[in-house]
Amino acid sequence: MFEVKDQIESVRGFRAAGVHAGLKAAGERDMALILSDRPCTAAGVFTRNKVQAAPVIFDKQQLEDPARRMRAVAVNTKYANALTGPAGMTLVQDMARAVSETAAVSVDEVLILQTGVIGVLPPLDKITAGIEQAYDALGHGWQGAAEGILTTDTRVKIACVDVLTINGTYRIAGIAKGSGMIAPNMATMLATIVTDAGVDASLLRQALNGANQQSFNRIVVDGDTSTNDTVLLLANGASGVTVESGADLQQFQAALTQLCIKLAQDIVRDGEGATKFISLHVTGARSTEQAERIAHTIAASPLVKTAFFGNDANWGRIIAAAGRAGVPFEPDKARLSLSAGEAPPDPEEGETGVLIYDRGQAADYEEADATRAISGGSVYVALDLGVGDAEATVWTCDLSHDYVSINGDYRT
Amino acid sequence: MFEVKDQIESVRGFRAAGVHAGLKAAGERDMALILSDRPCTAAGVFTRNKVQAAPVIFDKQQLEDPARRMRAVAVNTKYANALTGPAGMTLVQDMARAVSETAAVSVDEVLILQTGVIGVLPPLDKITAGIEQAYDALGHGWQGAAEGILTTDTRVKIACVDVLTINGTYRIAGIAKGSGMIAPNMATMLATIVTDAGVDASLLRQALNGANQQSFNRIVVDGDTSTNDTVLLLANGASGVTVESGADLQQFQAALTQLCIKLAQDIVRDGEGATKFISLHVTGARSTEQAERIAHTIAASPLVKTAFFGNDANWGRIIAAAGRAGVPFEPDKARLSLSAGEAPPDPEEGETGVLIYDRGQAADYEEADATRAISGGSVYVALDLGVGDAEATVWTCDLSHDYVSINGDYRT
Repeated sequence: MFEVKDQIESVRGFRAAGVHAGLKAAGERDMALILSDRPCTAAGVFTRNKVQAAPVIFDKQQLEDPARRMRAVAVNTKYANALTGPAGMTLVQDMARAVSETAAVSVDEVLILQTGVIGVLPPLDKITAGIEQAYDALGHGWQGAAEGILTTDTRVKIACVDVLTINGTYRIAGIAKGSGMIAPNMATMLATIVTDAGVDASLLRQALNGANQQSFNRIVVDGDTSTNDTVLLLANGASGVTVESGADLQQFQAALTQLCIKLAQDIVRDGEGATKFISLHVTGARSTEQAERIAHTIAASPLVKTAFFGNDANWGRIIAAAGRAGVPFEPDKARLSLSAGEAPPDPEEGETGVLIYDRGQAADYEEADATRAISGGSVYVALDLGVGDAEATVWTCDLSHDYVSINGDYRT
Repeated sequence: MFEVKDQIESVRGFRAAGVHAGLKAAGERDMALILSDRPCTAAGVFTRNKVQAAPVIFDKQQLEDPARRMRAVAVNTKYANALTGPAGMTLVQDMARAVSETAAVSVDEVLILQTGVIGVLPPLDKITAGIEQAYDALGHGWQGAAEGILTTDTRVKIACVDVLTINGTYRIAGIAKGSGMIAPNMATMLATIVTDAGVDASLLRQALNGANQQSFNRIVVDGDTSTNDTVLLLANGASGVTVESGADLQQFQAALTQLCIKLAQDIVRDGEGATKFISLHVTGARSTEQAERIAHTIAASPLVKTAFFGNDANWGRIIAAAGRAGVPFEPDKARLSLSAGEAPPDPEEGETGVLIYDRGQAADYEEADATRAISGGSVYVALDLGVGDAEATVWTCDLSHDYVSINGDYRT
């Protein structure tokens, strides 16, 4: 287990800044730039939506050849630059060119992230000026960069972990955004993660895919999946520590996974209108995939989410959602229990969950106990399918009046 | 085209009643009984949820052998009798026995529908008394029966159609309930449809499956699918008109489909918290199945539904939802237009939709026109995928504050 901090002091060889480029209302940061003083190996995971924003198409091309090295990540908020036609692709290229000219790197070394409203072309002049402004401000500005990528988010998402090895210490650090539209297979979320470890591009990709599967792909806010979802990982080797395959890589991936889980959970915690953080732990499945499918279906159910909002321990809705997940489910073998908090109840501390559903029918429990378990800010839901050994955890939030207000009253 | 009325005067050979059996608050009808004076061929379609309520299991067994004839349908609301264990199955059998004894029919001739809260055993004594009370009240009580099956519904759903043939006239009539938890592959909805036509059991099943696919399987309220969804169809032949295969059957199925569409649309109109009735017409698909998948995914998207609630013609969310439907979608070939009303705009009347998205990017339109098109109580959304000739229409509603209140504050 690694200690994951929620601030980044510095990462060797990287500089960062967030600025107000005039895209959002005055005073709000709306752009960010991250620059490495040396070439980085890089990896990315992207939305599986058939509709892919111009920056997604651009970054996938940039990362297609693992031999390519990257230097910079430029981000703008307010405009997703999705479904903007050929002009949108041109804009991304122009934006990369602006980074190239400002930061004296090759266009081939630039990655672009964009988020915000779909279908509206971002204003290139403001973005170009923002890049210049951000370049001038580069330094330990991780907090500012984390602010500069937010949309409807109410707070920054930052994570940093130090990894001690016999060859020295390296650091992994990341910033993320996302609050609504968070779903399996990537959310409307962006994350940029950097490390001063040296990691071969193919190992880096392997590590990111593994970490992503355990973190960003395990969160659900509303089940919608966006056109722009991207996680980027850049490794510049400035620490002098190299991650080799084998135990090194395992350690790297474990630390990266913890960091990604922290960022992913922060996104759920900041889910649009969320009042509860819900950990949904499905065990006893025949396969991890089946456990995930059931957990995701429960997590995306509006009926389940509104019940949690109303402090109603409505196990019938949870079991009914499990039943429509499209994978085998045997209600007569399943058990469901609830407890307060983010972690499973600890029997050594005398903690137990409230068993509310037991193999085909209601368990023998007091409604008041169940209500108490779910009435706080975090709820742990344990569903044992009773048919195998596989498991999966998904993190989600409730569905509140504020979700409707945020998404009904405001064009995100 | 048949004229579908929203009341049932009578259907030859059938009697109906709805009563207050003390399951719901005083004065509210909570049970219904429908009885035929002669044996009926019968057909049913049921939820595909892996969690199936006791009445669903019971009815499927009753209808397994097409040679079996039915006489009665008994319905209670307030209790779904789902996930109630062996006691729930016993209760359904006891309920059928009560109908058998009260109405002097065989237990083999009884079908049971139940709806309401999951996991709580219904009180047999009240239900038995309710059946006796309903039996005593039997007559032209279709309005009362339609009331007696409601849960969170705010109004009855009734449809009736007369079919003229060269051999005489027969009638098809139905009542339905359902407001929340309405989804593809059956909603939390119950419908009982009767006809005084004589229809062979296998033809009846064929007609019901076809009609269901075009109606109840084309509505979405919140994407949740229930444990109790059932549509029953009984034909008693009392009109003296027999429906043979061929043109007869086509006519019967066409009338039945229109009747089912009327009931299905009434369910959407009464969707929990709904302020808008949305017709989503997907054309130009490679297959009907792909058109349906895309239409269902858009219809179930919380982001799309909240945008409609907010009168925001947010085409980006619609196209993004199409992109994650899990079937091929080419944003560069699709076009999206909006218009007010339930029917497509009629060019002969000078009506045109507002084209808001055109093959990869925003169309050239005035936001005020788009807002006007969606600000009324009904919206027609036309999405042309541009890749084929298949199509599908799905009916849905918006997602409002009241949906959250209804489902967060009340255990349904």
